[in-house]
Amino acid sequence: MTGMSTEPVDLTTALDTFDALWSPRVLARVNDHDVRVAKVRGEHVWHRHDNTDEFFLVLSGHLDIALRAPDRVVTLPRGSVFVVPRGAEHKPSSAEGATILMVELTGTLTVGDRHDPLPGHVDVTTGHEL
Amino acid sequence: MTGMSTEPVDLTTALDTFDALWSPRVLARVNDHDVRVAKVRGEHVWHRHDNTDEFFLVLSGHLDIALRAPDRVVTLPRGSVFVVPRGAEHKPSSAEGATILMVELTGTLTVGDRHDPLPGHVDVTTGHEL
Repeated sequence: MTGMSTEPVDLTTALDTFDALWSPRVLARVNDHDVRVAKVRGEHVWHRHDNTDEFFLVLSGHLDIALRAPDRVVTLPRGSVFVVPRGAEHKPSSAEGATILMVELTGTLTVGDRHDPLPGHVDVTTGHEL
Repeated sequence: MTGMSTEPVDLTTALDTFDALWSPRVLARVNDHDVRVAKVRGEHVWHRHDNTDEFFLVLSGHLDIALRAPDRVVTLPRGSVFVVPRGAEHKPSSAEGATILMVELTGTLTVGDRHDPLPGHVDVTTGHEL
């Protein structure tokens, strides 16, 4: 993480360093929170975070977030933001692919504290270093 | 704040709701942190936040952040991010103007806990509601 908080980081340059889907990179740390970026395409998995809200900003493409109780899908085009409240079951997906920026507590697992059985393409991580 | 965490918000639409410079709007809350957006042009004021880091993402334009010890200016073009660590004296400026997104503890004052004498154009706020 050396240098992450002392030098600026260009988003495009950061995104060019990896291709893995659903595998967030930690772009910056702000107090006890991470700012992460990820490339996504296809479906993630139903999960929930018991101890953290999760902020999403769509940098490119189009992200859907399915929610329960009541069942609905929030559609996020490029340039839109949304917060999934702690405890809310959700499943992100992106038919065409997207790049996203997230803010959540440091240490938050990509698959949350409770989740459906994991498909092989979902990376279980608290965020990789850039 | 009703609806802020339950419906998506479009960044451009949010930015179109105000013209005031150096006067952040709270776009979203994530746990005990705010995600704020602001329009800036000209010079802010030297200040520091004793209890929070401050994350910057430049959405459009060009932001400079002057820092001390050692004296330097970090230049942030569109699409770049930077974290000013807690306790670090800093002065944002933008000769041509910029729109920025910030992440910091809810309740953080725009002018910090210690600051130089305030010019009239600097809004002293913990962030206005959208």
